[in-house]
Amino acid sequence: MRALVKERPGKGLVLKEVPAPRPGPRDVLIKVQRVGLCGTDAHIYAWNAWAAGRVKPPVTIGHEFSGTIAEVGAEVSGHTPGDLVTAEGHIACGVCVQCRTGNAHICRDVRIIGVDIDGAFADFIVMPATNVWKIDPEIGLDVAAIHDPLGNAFHTVMSADVRGRSVLVTGCGPIGLFCIGIAKASGASRIFASEVQPARLELARMMGAHRNINPATDDLEQVVRSQTDGLGVDVVLEMSGHPRAIRGGLKVVRDGGVVCLLGLPDDEVPVNISRDVIFKGITVKGIIGRRMYETWFAMRSYLRAGLFDPTPVITHRFAIDDFEKALEAIHSGAGKVILSMDMKDKGAA
Amino acid sequence: MRALVKERPGKGLVLKEVPAPRPGPRDVLIKVQRVGLCGTDAHIYAWNAWAAGRVKPPVTIGHEFSGTIAEVGAEVSGHTPGDLVTAEGHIACGVCVQCRTGNAHICRDVRIIGVDIDGAFADFIVMPATNVWKIDPEIGLDVAAIHDPLGNAFHTVMSADVRGRSVLVTGCGPIGLFCIGIAKASGASRIFASEVQPARLELARMMGAHRNINPATDDLEQVVRSQTDGLGVDVVLEMSGHPRAIRGGLKVVRDGGVVCLLGLPDDEVPVNISRDVIFKGITVKGIIGRRMYETWFAMRSYLRAGLFDPTPVITHRFAIDDFEKALEAIHSGAGKVILSMDMKDKGAA
Amino acid sequence: MRALVKERPGKGLVLKEVPAPRPGPRDVLIKVQRVGLCGTDAHIYAWNAWAAGRVKPPVTIGHEFSGTIAEVGAEVSGHTPGDLVTAEGHIACGVCVQCRTGNAHICRDVRIIGVDIDGAFADFIVMPATNVWKIDPEIGLDVAAIHDPLGNAFHTVMSADVRGRSVLVTGCGPIGLFCIGIAKASGASRIFASEVQPARLELARMMGAHRNINPATDDLEQVVRSQTDGLGVDVVLEMSGHPRAIRGGLKVVRDGGVVCLLGLPDDEVPVNISRDVIFKGITVKGIIGRRMYETWFAMRSYLRAGLFDPTPVITHRFAIDDFEKALEAIHSGAGKVILSMDMKDKGAA
Amino acid sequence: MRALVKERPGKGLVLKEVPAPRPGPRDVLIKVQRVGLCGTDAHIYAWNAWAAGRVKPPVTIGHEFSGTIAEVGAEVSGHTPGDLVTAEGHIACGVCVQCRTGNAHICRDVRIIGVDIDGAFADFIVMPATNVWKIDPEIGLDVAAIHDPLGNAFHTVMSADVRGRSVLVTGCGPIGLFCIGIAKASGASRIFASEVQPARLELARMMGAHRNINPATDDLEQVVRSQTDGLGVDVVLEMSGHPRAIRGGLKVVRDGGVVCLLGLPDDEVPVNISRDVIFKGITVKGIIGRRMYETWFAMRSYLRAGLFDPTPVITHRFAIDDFEKALEAIHSGAGKVILSMDMKDKGAA
Repeated sequence: MRALVKERPGKGLVLKEVPAPRPGPRDVLIKVQRVGLCGTDAHIYAWNAWAAGRVKPPVTIGHEFSGTIAEVGAEVSGHTPGDLVTAEGHIACGVCVQCRTGNAHICRDVRIIGVDIDGAFADFIVMPATNVWKIDPEIGLDVAAIHDPLGNAFHTVMSADVRGRSVLVTGCGPIGLFCIGIAKASGASRIFASEVQPARLELARMMGAHRNINPATDDLEQVVRSQTDGLGVDVVLEMSGHPRAIRGGLKVVRDGGVVCLLGLPDDEVPVNISRDVIFKGITVKGIIGRRMYETWFAMRSYLRAGLFDPTPVITHRFAIDDFEKALEAIHSGAGKVILSMDMKDKGAA
Repeated sequence: MRALVKERPGKGLVLKEVPAPRPGPRDVLIKVQRVGLCGTDAHIYAWNAWAAGRVKPPVTIGHEFSGTIAEVGAEVSGHTPGDLVTAEGHIACGVCVQCRTGNAHICRDVRIIGVDIDGAFADFIVMPATNVWKIDPEIGLDVAAIHDPLGNAFHTVMSADVRGRSVLVTGCGPIGLFCIGIAKASGASRIFASEVQPARLELARMMGAHRNINPATDDLEQVVRSQTDGLGVDVVLEMSGHPRAIRGGLKVVRDGGVVCLLGLPDDEVPVNISRDVIFKGITVKGIIGRRMYETWFAMRSYLRAGLFDPTPVITHRFAIDDFEKALEAIHSGAGKVILSMDMKDKGAA
Repeated sequence: MRALVKERPGKGLVLKEVPAPRPGPRDVLIKVQRVGLCGTDAHIYAWNAWAAGRVKPPVTIGHEFSGTIAEVGAEVSGHTPGDLVTAEGHIACGVCVQCRTGNAHICRDVRIIGVDIDGAFADFIVMPATNVWKIDPEIGLDVAAIHDPLGNAFHTVMSADVRGRSVLVTGCGPIGLFCIGIAKASGASRIFASEVQPARLELARMMGAHRNINPATDDLEQVVRSQTDGLGVDVVLEMSGHPRAIRGGLKVVRDGGVVCLLGLPDDEVPVNISRDVIFKGITVKGIIGRRMYETWFAMRSYLRAGLFDPTPVITHRFAIDDFEKALEAIHSGAGKVILSMDMKDKGAA
Repeated sequence: MRALVKERPGKGLVLKEVPAPRPGPRDVLIKVQRVGLCGTDAHIYAWNAWAAGRVKPPVTIGHEFSGTIAEVGAEVSGHTPGDLVTAEGHIACGVCVQCRTGNAHICRDVRIIGVDIDGAFADFIVMPATNVWKIDPEIGLDVAAIHDPLGNAFHTVMSADVRGRSVLVTGCGPIGLFCIGIAKASGASRIFASEVQPARLELARMMGAHRNINPATDDLEQVVRSQTDGLGVDVVLEMSGHPRAIRGGLKVVRDGGVVCLLGLPDDEVPVNISRDVIFKGITVKGIIGRRMYETWFAMRSYLRAGLFDPTPVITHRFAIDDFEKALEAIHSGAGKVILSMDMKDKGAA
């Protein structure tokens, strides 16, 4: 089968033929049809410091995908060949204290597909049956393929209480854009979106942001305070990992507010703990992955009920052969970039 | 009456005669008998940067006290001359959104006695009746006088769930020492105390710490991990404001754990947000003041039930005339320092 | 001034001239313009068992109202003559443990306007300044007049987490109808409305219910289970007080679900505690009044943001002189019934 | 091997030879050494209505046990022959929405050992490896054998916040007695124990109750109110299932308090919902089983730290052959009754 492989340390990826995997007795073999491109994939392509420290080539990359079940292991029940599915890409150990207390998303022995083990940018992938998530046919292959980042967004928004609250989303990449839509559907009263890329700010508006802020030209604090009776926002969802956004978010969250941090800064960030955390009595939450499987059920529920539509975030579609063009797109302010494993499938996406 | 007054900018305090205050219709006049010395008082004496920026001399300092009601205003009910009392020293505005939603402890328009308005190091103080807190006679003047810092400690410990959990207290000044006792009484399974002053570590042991750590000589992370199956502690209560303690606490808290920050660092602290906050999925809470009046009711309940005894933390007692000796003591690793307004009262404390 | 007065025990109410009240130094005098009619008012008119046991005539009735500030007491700040206002009608004692810990809505010494003390169905009412709530002009007199029941609905919905959840509202009087709209605006994925009056079921649909159930003709459990994969609903909001609805709600809530009870049954209700509460591991919450003032801020936020529109629930408007017609209407399946104090004002409502 | 078997419908149990079970690849074979006798076992012996409706003979009974691992299945890791263990006796399905969202304790497809499938009153039992729970050697066989009911007690106490709170435990069978000790270790300020059997009241005192109440002779409400400033208790833990205790608990819980219900009433219980639930704004929680595995980790933590000692609750020990004497004991006010599978082991318990 074809697979997009990191063959060796250094820049680059190769689309090549590799042997197809075979499912074990508790596994499911999935024919991959669509995949989503993530910043992580770009890091592995570029071989940045994080990638060099974590990834052990050769490995097939990719963790966002959808497809159809091709085969189920002998002991698998509840899954059937032909089912439209995606999967939770974090394969947790199942036996540590985190896994056994409902916190598998912070399992230390997690293996992530496309990073630690072979991933989804291939014609087939094998997943443990417990990680496979059935998708309603009306949801479709595209939205199915982005359940992983959508789940990050749901996990973030669900970590705060946004009902009737003002919310600032800093960083309007795909996850931030999803957050805007989910927050709006969950009763947020006023959503500020902060982002330097104008195209993404336009998407923010489409997803429901009431007020866009471009930190390159706008004064974040001035804008936020002027529209919140001077109090600041109730909730900050930090999706960028930029020190400036983190510091800005801590500055403009109101006293007693909540700051959810998902974007990963490269370096240490100086924080004015006295002024911005203690005197304000705020709560800061580190957000990683998605809750297994509370987040997934929430996602299913919102999508089934049509509470929000993530599709405007999908701005680019390519065939897998054009993966390098796709990588370029995500560096140019794209929303979500989806690849089809089947060339003919491209136009239908 | 006598009052310990910050007369003008610069170092020093003066014990001098000033006119006694008179209560308004909704106020209570209290004859002060014991006062507690706080780091804040030392900062005002020394006239550090914070004091210079906030305090407007002349002002009588002091916010920890106990005494007896001397007179009640015409509209006051529920308080009677002769009652043993202390008071919440944060006089909140009562009308802002924080005050009206149960968060008066983060009111922006708060006036703090002994900082913003005349305080308690005097023969008499006037307090709004709503701030006055009646003390059971069996609690006594000394413990009554330290309800303010005791309340900080209760507010901190109550902000986390320590039942059956391992707890690290960094900084064993009086508030940290109180935290140890409260955590122990609340079901903490293992308490680590980190502090550089050996005398305070000895007090930590007396208050119930299972394992003392002197960061000058011990490796905090090594000690904590070796005694927590490598996981780290469930809860960190940071009382020192030292950057090293804050960073150490964030490092050794377990994945999914909670870090409560009360100690105020002077400067910005570099935080490894990716590694220590996000990947670990922890929660960080800024803790300030005491909840009005949930914390006070909790304090009353613990003290009445004898669930823990704060008195070992009181290590020094002076007459008010010896305030400079008292200030020296708090710079020499003392626990709580109490002053008596009445010389003859000194020995009885 | 005119006032609608319960003059003596027994059926009936009289619209008569009474002396206008005068504000004390911390009070606000409000010229009443619109009032809302509540089941409580009907009970006092009819002089049922509850009314006979609680109300001490003579008393001016009515607790839902809006109007304009006519005069403020000498010590009042933050309120100005001419302001459009309504008020929290529960005057809590302010000093009990509930009042001092953020739970004034369950203060035992509460005095309710129109029940325990003179109420709002009059040309003027005096309220403590702390209970007066300013309304944005664009909200208007009508919606201002129904903040009390709207607050009940907000308090109920906010007591559960409805995000992405299925919700059953039993009893579609005004408060139930408001609940539907608030739940929908807060991310509920599927809302079932149960009610015997067809007109109210039609309003339920307008407010956002996905599926109406008439318990007179439909099988509640069968309908709910058939549309929830057999699991039952995540959240039940019980607004009717009918034993059948309470028992039905407990039956169809899913395992681990939440049941909020606001409707007051007249008699004891037999509950299958083993089957419906314990084996299912559910949580049942008693809901009373509105949180002071968290609920009010939430209400302001939703209304300002236009997150939902309560006006379809207002189905009838009368002049105060026609109060008996209005009372008839609420027994005939009306939504909210509003009275104007000014005849000429009737048409404009 | 020997097994205590329910052979057929009707009263009685038979200790007989049966084939020993064999572990599957993911199972663990445990040599049983001690077992705990539960009311459920007595119900199956007596063949009451519940037993007749649920149990399908023949089945080996018993779900409380401890022993030593004899053999592990081929795919099992983390367990070793010779380990001292007990097990969670609820074998949840693992795939339903409850199991996948951290609520396996309310899985509808649960199979309970000793009820739905062969249980622990036998020389050997096979358990899924995920249900097996390793016990520190210093905990010992006896306390290991009672982890199931101890877990019920932990689950109950952990469902409320008892820190500094007054707690009423109604029903002082073993689970109620454990609750007293756990509540005391968790910072409860005042514990009331209600029970008709004097021997159990004496155990309640030993476990830490401050005030015993015998509802046969004492007025529960009068006693509780007289010692709680008339407010009632903060938390009720109902362990008896008696309608009188349930109604009494709802009556004496304070406004805003919490009632946890674990004891299973046989019939419907009339509840004064208006007076006792709604006007008081309380929360009622149905408690079943133990959380998998949060409760187990909490239990381990409390026991390791020596936060409380459950052994005083173990009042009777018998050899398995004397099971009928043991059944008599639990009807005579015993605390926990333990049986040894090995006659010679009896005295050592």
